[in-house]
Amino acid sequence: MTASQHHIVPPTLGRIPVLEVGPRVEQGAFPVKSVVGEPFTVTATVFREGHDGVSATVVTTDPDGDQTRAPMMLISPGLDHWSATICADRTGHWSYRVEGWSNPYSTWAHDATIKIAADVDTELMLEEGALVLERALDEVSRTAAEAEPLENAIVALRDVTRPPPARLQPGVAPEVRVELERRPLRDLVSPGPAYDWVVERERALFGAWYEIFPRSEGATQDHRTGLWTSGTLRTAARRLTAIADMGFDVVYLTPIHPIGVINRKGPNNTPVAGPPDPGSPYAIGSVDGGHDAIAPELGTFADFDAFVAEAGRLGLEVALDLALNCAPDHPWVTTHPDWFTQRADGTIACAENPPKKYQDVYPLNFDNDPAGIYAEIRRVVQVWLDHGVTIFRVDNPHTKPLQFWQWLIADVAATAPDTIWLAEAFTRPAMMHALGKVGFQQSYTYYTWRSKKWELEEYVTELAGESATYMRPSFWPTTHDILPPYLQYGGPTAWKVRAALAATLVPTYGIYAGYELVENVARPGVEEQIDNEKYEFKDRHWPDYENGGPKAGQSLAPYLTLINEIRRSHPALHLLRNIHLHHVDDENVMAFSKRRTIGGSAGRDDTILVIANLDPHATRESTVHLDMAALGLHPGDGFVAHDLITGASWHWGKDNFVRLGPDGEPVHIIHIRRF
Amino acid sequence: MTASQHHIVPPTLGRIPVLEVGPRVEQGAFPVKSVVGEPFTVTATVFREGHDGVSATVVTTDPDGDQTRAPMMLISPGLDHWSATICADRTGHWSYRVEGWSNPYSTWAHDATIKIAADVDTELMLEEGALVLERALDEVSRTAAEAEPLENAIVALRDVTRPPPARLQPGVAPEVRVELERRPLRDLVSPGPAYDWVVERERALFGAWYEIFPRSEGATQDHRTGLWTSGTLRTAARRLTAIADMGFDVVYLTPIHPIGVINRKGPNNTPVAGPPDPGSPYAIGSVDGGHDAIAPELGTFADFDAFVAEAGRLGLEVALDLALNCAPDHPWVTTHPDWFTQRADGTIACAENPPKKYQDVYPLNFDNDPAGIYAEIRRVVQVWLDHGVTIFRVDNPHTKPLQFWQWLIADVAATAPDTIWLAEAFTRPAMMHALGKVGFQQSYTYYTWRSKKWELEEYVTELAGESATYMRPSFWPTTHDILPPYLQYGGPTAWKVRAALAATLVPTYGIYAGYELVENVARPGVEEQIDNEKYEFKDRHWPDYENGGPKAGQSLAPYLTLINEIRRSHPALHLLRNIHLHHVDDENVMAFSKRRTIGGSAGRDDTILVIANLDPHATRESTVHLDMAALGLHPGDGFVAHDLITGASWHWGKDNFVRLGPDGEPVHIIHIRRF
Repeated sequence: MTASQHHIVPPTLGRIPVLEVGPRVEQGAFPVKSVVGEPFTVTATVFREGHDGVSATVVTTDPDGDQTRAPMMLISPGLDHWSATICADRTGHWSYRVEGWSNPYSTWAHDATIKIAADVDTELMLEEGALVLERALDEVSRTAAEAEPLENAIVALRDVTRPPPARLQPGVAPEVRVELERRPLRDLVSPGPAYDWVVERERALFGAWYEIFPRSEGATQDHRTGLWTSGTLRTAARRLTAIADMGFDVVYLTPIHPIGVINRKGPNNTPVAGPPDPGSPYAIGSVDGGHDAIAPELGTFADFDAFVAEAGRLGLEVALDLALNCAPDHPWVTTHPDWFTQRADGTIACAENPPKKYQDVYPLNFDNDPAGIYAEIRRVVQVWLDHGVTIFRVDNPHTKPLQFWQWLIADVAATAPDTIWLAEAFTRPAMMHALGKVGFQQSYTYYTWRSKKWELEEYVTELAGESATYMRPSFWPTTHDILPPYLQYGGPTAWKVRAALAATLVPTYGIYAGYELVENVARPGVEEQIDNEKYEFKDRHWPDYENGGPKAGQSLAPYLTLINEIRRSHPALHLLRNIHLHHVDDENVMAFSKRRTIGGSAGRDDTILVIANLDPHATRESTVHLDMAALGLHPGDGFVAHDLITGASWHWGKDNFVRLGPDGEPVHIIHIRRF
Repeated sequence: MTASQHHIVPPTLGRIPVLEVGPRVEQGAFPVKSVVGEPFTVTATVFREGHDGVSATVVTTDPDGDQTRAPMMLISPGLDHWSATICADRTGHWSYRVEGWSNPYSTWAHDATIKIAADVDTELMLEEGALVLERALDEVSRTAAEAEPLENAIVALRDVTRPPPARLQPGVAPEVRVELERRPLRDLVSPGPAYDWVVERERALFGAWYEIFPRSEGATQDHRTGLWTSGTLRTAARRLTAIADMGFDVVYLTPIHPIGVINRKGPNNTPVAGPPDPGSPYAIGSVDGGHDAIAPELGTFADFDAFVAEAGRLGLEVALDLALNCAPDHPWVTTHPDWFTQRADGTIACAENPPKKYQDVYPLNFDNDPAGIYAEIRRVVQVWLDHGVTIFRVDNPHTKPLQFWQWLIADVAATAPDTIWLAEAFTRPAMMHALGKVGFQQSYTYYTWRSKKWELEEYVTELAGESATYMRPSFWPTTHDILPPYLQYGGPTAWKVRAALAATLVPTYGIYAGYELVENVARPGVEEQIDNEKYEFKDRHWPDYENGGPKAGQSLAPYLTLINEIRRSHPALHLLRNIHLHHVDDENVMAFSKRRTIGGSAGRDDTILVIANLDPHATRESTVHLDMAALGLHPGDGFVAHDLITGASWHWGKDNFVRLGPDGEPVHIIHIRRF
């Protein structure tokens, strides 16, 4: 067999079968993922022949190789399904596996209880109990206090002066059972396969992003000539305070590299740019340099360092766009023409979606010189890592080989393990999911086009289910390229709804600059803003919206600030897999909750309930029917529903009236407070 | 890492990703199964970056290592799901895998068709087409006839005297496309993981079984004394003609070994046997020998050989019960007391289901001396293989370690690969399924208790779906231990329905002797026949039911004969995975079809449609709504429905009236004949 015809290596079948272990990604070919402090559920089918007691343990191995064991619960006896929740306390390469084992104590306790009641083999069963407990003392180390109930039980089991039920009782008493759950006597221990488990920092799962075109921040237009002066990294840095004040965690910069001059696009993607047109920052490379350079109009590396420093001072991480597109005047086209596709006439192929051609962009051909291209891109990435970039937002990763991303992300992680990669792959599910499997920490999603209740419920159920093992969604109501019809036509209410849902349905969301200004004018006939910022400068005149300005009170910035504050204060919203849907009578009103227990079973409980009217045109009244168990409540319980948006509080129970919509607030974000 | 902490070895991600390949069993830990001539569907998710054409091929490797490639179809473009049907032509250890690859011809054909129509890069596209076809000629060997359309196309593509559409046309013509599907030019060929695939003989999937207690066949009772004379292997052999005449394929013998005397059970499982009681053949072993011996009252090995020879002459295979139970007087109890569980008082543990004890049976303890027990059972199995047994019906395999069965079945297959093992594991699904995964060719199922339409539909959908990859069901309406309420109370109609369904829902079914006599009297309060044959002789007076006998016409033997004849004549009924359910208005009337194409797409088509009224108490009239596509028909088609039970024929279409029940026949088995 050649290496290219590799077989899956079968795990051996253990003495106690351990099958159907999950979660796993592509049979274990890729690691499962979590972030520090993120619990998830491990399941397995564990059973044995005959009637003896069987138990299951989940074993986690931390990056140092130290193992921790935790008991699993039999959640479905008929199906022999076991479950346990695990959680890592630090980043690194972990693994987990499930052990099945024979439980001589539970076998004895079960049989002895039945047989002694029926007076079958009574003396023998009592003695066999003493022998099992003696083994439990001999073979498992215990403190004196831990051993005591077992020792007492042994004495009782052999105390012929007592009646048999009184001899049995201490052997099956709760303190013995609990001790033997915590430190069990295990026979025939049989390990199932181990699964790689990568634990990443919390920002990989939880964060609020804000996207800017740096050249627009501080750009000014001469109203006489119409000519623009570009913003710079220095002027853009002045905007960071506002972004941080709104409560965002990440500022994402569209590409900052020199923009190609050859075949540069003009406003609204017109094929010819005039001299004043700045060009698309996604057509990268000119005589001023390529992906490792900064466009001269934006400034220098010193300016970039200052930008990163200011962001850091404000608690913002900087995400940089990695757009592997080359303008025809990119240096690589000259130095490495073999990195591109040569046509039969000797020209270099531009990007195409036949019959359309994108003459301003040459795609790399990774199959011509993979080693050379891999090394060069790795070098470029290191340039930005060295200048403080911790997150890369990757443009169209689905047009480059998956193998390349798997290699690049792993290679960077070897020296910069906290680096986060966001995949912008608005493409078919197979590729979108595979990018998560090969290493991207986050993925743009179809959220942008999911605005109905049924499709949002279906979609978050998918995202919070099995796929959460390898793919972390980032919800964006708009991007600089996408303005969906719901936001074109729904007015400010729609913009509130979409931000609030993005920020609470999943733990990572992002907005594109200007969202707070409800920029809802589309280029006619397409789902894109008119005058796409990709091809133009935009001066949003931020001061106009400040107190005393001509547009004061028109910005959604206070709403976004409130939402981000709620997100930060409520750890339930930092998780993905904990979403639970609740029934609402009105098909336009959606309700979901997230619950998190902090610090173990005795810890604090944080429960958030979101109720949103998805119809931006009409206020709706309906009844919300809560699944009380999902909130940690009993069906008859009452609780205080404290709306974090309005500050109102109500006494609520299982079934509750709501009124939401454009004549008030469209969304409740309710903190559940127990009596 | 120790061997016991094995990791799954990840398949490398290929240049073209090949993910989610199926079928696979436990991530490839166990082989997928089929029998010779049994088609099944391989699926995979195959996709690539960017817009170039991608294709997928399924590669099968036969037991000699020779590979065959077949194209896969893109069955769901949005999900990048590909599919192909594969089928093995001989037994042995096969494997299959999926290759993804870049398709330069389909890339060009797609782009060129669009671009030349729009007159974009016309001359260049035509030349690039010629270059692709030149590569296809250079790199893939073809006969002169196969090469000709490609050569002609190259000439045309470069023929500047023609208009561009006329130059393009030969390059994208069907004969070129078909040639390049059959013998493609493939770039970036990327193999997915290979999966082991075991191909077994047809009897592993398809067969009709008949169970007998050999001692009853020819047993006679002295009506004055009440004493019985045991039947023998010689008298039992005389019954084989009748069994073969009914069309059965396998005669299954309950254990034929010496029966324990100590603690022998009496009639109806009474705890004490009288001297004339023959005992349960499942309490094996006495001074006359153990599992490698024949009970003296049944005869000798010469008699057994004669029985097997007579069966063979009649086309019957002999299945022997392998019941690893030991009576207290089994030789192993003396020679190997360590093979059993020793109680604390030095006694040997009998079988128990607390508080019940089964004093006539000592279970083996496989953990005490696995090597010794494995070797001894292997020796016993070989004794019977050497005497012509080809099938083992294993009693309660779920009370022995799975590891043992995996080893035993594989070890026997090494020298006797055609051996078939039937698991009698009436237990929870995890164990039942796992026994199939580790090697049992067939499994008893829950069919015995599934008598309603919804539960039968749900169950066969499960059995014919993913689980058909590793578990082959055997449907038994009754066994010598189980008489379900439906048959206790449903009269002869119920017995017809249950046999006909068992024989057509799945390809392997079996009945226990006396089924044809509608032996429906239960021991009060339990789902078991009164006077269980396990503990008694039974003389069924077969001649009474023959022509001229006092009970002539009362036997269902002719019905069973007809059903078995239909099964043999119709290859559609030899398969499991081809079942398709059809809607019937009445919730008591069930309809399903099986279709099989013999000899490739141009071959013969066999389609059987079964319609059964599951209510044995009332004749019902209803309408059957056929899914015509599943029958290979169009919605408006008509066909001749020929009922193989009654010989009647009707002109049918999509929606058809049926009348079925106790006042006529309860089941149609319809052969669909096209006009």
